[in-house]
Amino acid sequence: MTDGLTISGLTITHLKQIGDERGAVYHFMNSDSHTFKGFGEAYFSKINTGVVKGWKFHHEAFQNFCVPFGRIKIVVFDNREGFESKGMINEIVLDDANNYTLLSMPPGLWYSFKCESESFSLLANIIDIKHDPKESQNLPLDTKKIPYDWGH
Amino acid sequence: MTDGLTISGLTITHLKQIGDERGAVYHFMNSDSHTFKGFGEAYFSKINTGVVKGWKFHHEAFQNFCVPFGRIKIVVFDNREGFESKGMINEIVLDDANNYTLLSMPPGLWYSFKCESESFSLLANIIDIKHDPKESQNLPLDTKKIPYDWGH
Repeated sequence: MTDGLTISGLTITHLKQIGDERGAVYHFMNSDSHTFKGFGEAYFSKINTGVVKGWKFHHEAFQNFCVPFGRIKIVVFDNREGFESKGMINEIVLDDANNYTLLSMPPGLWYSFKCESESFSLLANIIDIKHDPKESQNLPLDTKKIPYDWGH
Repeated sequence: MTDGLTISGLTITHLKQIGDERGAVYHFMNSDSHTFKGFGEAYFSKINTGVVKGWKFHHEAFQNFCVPFGRIKIVVFDNREGFESKGMINEIVLDDANNYTLLSMPPGLWYSFKCESESFSLLANIIDIKHDPKESQNLPLDTKKIPYDWGH
């Protein structure tokens, strides 16, 4: 399922929430998931309301995101040479309700994300390698190298 | 780290929260974690305030729990033949603040858990096998087979 995404390799997969009066079970990922590339690390990024984190870039890590609490807008920029989607921007909203979906992102893309809910949001991430600062890069939010204006 | 746990194989591991003014990164698990037994599935259990879920039992699954949102009390009962801890009950509180820790639970133990925070809590779980209803069992909360009274 791509849901209108135009960046090559970037995918959205519907995730189930199986609820009852006690609460719910929120699916995230299993070893048969078509975007499961191996388990390196799972962590959460807590982001306070209105805050934007980014831009970030991974040379190697394949990431699988969902938002089990709150609502987050993720912006992805493809600057990969040789890809038809080079130059494209995709905007994706993940949340804990109607947009409870898995965003799967191959390495080589720039991304940043904003908490659009009150108080804070949690972005859950399963990556196929362990955290390694040497395989990632950062750019400031107001970089001229990425054609997206967060309005800051 | 066992933090007073007496049930054989049940462990608590401190997890880091690396915070700044934008939010925080909450560690959960990586492939080097000493309780990582392989990746079968990751999911969240949302549990509404005051609700108790359980009792549950897994014949095979090794579970790794943390609470990235809210506060949950987990009660574990060991009824395993041949274990020195047979008959013991352990109570553990996991939350998203001072008790942000990883509770690792081998198969063969009964457990149930209650949301002790307002609104709801999220219990995150990484298990070493995919969900398989055939490898789990349930007992009602008021079972006479488990010497714990949730006060229901």
